[in-house]
Amino acid sequence: MSIEELSKEECLELLQHESYVGRVAFVSDGRPVILPVNYLADDKTVVFCTIPGENVSALREVAPVAFEVDAIRPLYNAGWSVIVQGTAQEVVDPDEVEMLRRGPLKPWGTTEAEHWIRITIEDISGSRVPDS
Amino acid sequence: MSIEELSKEECLELLQHESYVGRVAFVSDGRPVILPVNYLADDKTVVFCTIPGENVSALREVAPVAFEVDAIRPLYNAGWSVIVQGTAQEVVDPDEVEMLRRGPLKPWGTTEAEHWIRITIEDISGSRVPDS
Repeated sequence: MSIEELSKEECLELLQHESYVGRVAFVSDGRPVILPVNYLADDKTVVFCTIPGENVSALREVAPVAFEVDAIRPLYNAGWSVIVQGTAQEVVDPDEVEMLRRGPLKPWGTTEAEHWIRITIEDISGSRVPDS
Repeated sequence: MSIEELSKEECLELLQHESYVGRVAFVSDGRPVILPVNYLADDKTVVFCTIPGENVSALREVAPVAFEVDAIRPLYNAGWSVIVQGTAQEVVDPDEVEMLRRGPLKPWGTTEAEHWIRITIEDISGSRVPDS
């Protein structure tokens, strides 16, 4: 098996068009926290929404985050993953929040008031293990 | 849509038998890091292996980690996820390493010397969003 590094363009393509659910990792009280979220991405940002209380208060201020998406086929020992390093901040502008509410992204399993979090992409990298 | 909390027993069952690849999150130089890894789990621990240099030096000492597995079907807005909070430490006992090397878990995309990392499970929780 060999690992192929993906170009930045390939990573952005996979992030934007080949996955719907990612995992955001952040630091809360010195400990790592990881949450699966559905998301939308463009070339510069990733947006997701959360319900209150999910340990996400650390994300409402400017916070460093890592965001991961993958598609892995264990039976073939093959797949790809893309990892974003960036900075998260809550979207608080009412017009922006309204636009996000009207968009296709819905929080799962809740009708509670949500927080919208935007990650600014600072670095993106990825790799693929082809079918052997 | 409604979220169902999973019992600890359900979480351990899913972790051990329904997933092969998880994502480990840890803190390195104050920033969150996230890595997809294939793994083996029992009731008390999760074991995975990594290649050198993958930012994993933070894991070779005792370190707090979060570990996540999921199975999500975006078209149905359904799925489950399980999250482990625990402590990671490198396996250094030569007999244990040899046993792990002989086992079914192989690092992907490499034949390089690997590090084996064991997470002691301190807390496990999970949720499911059923088909609507």
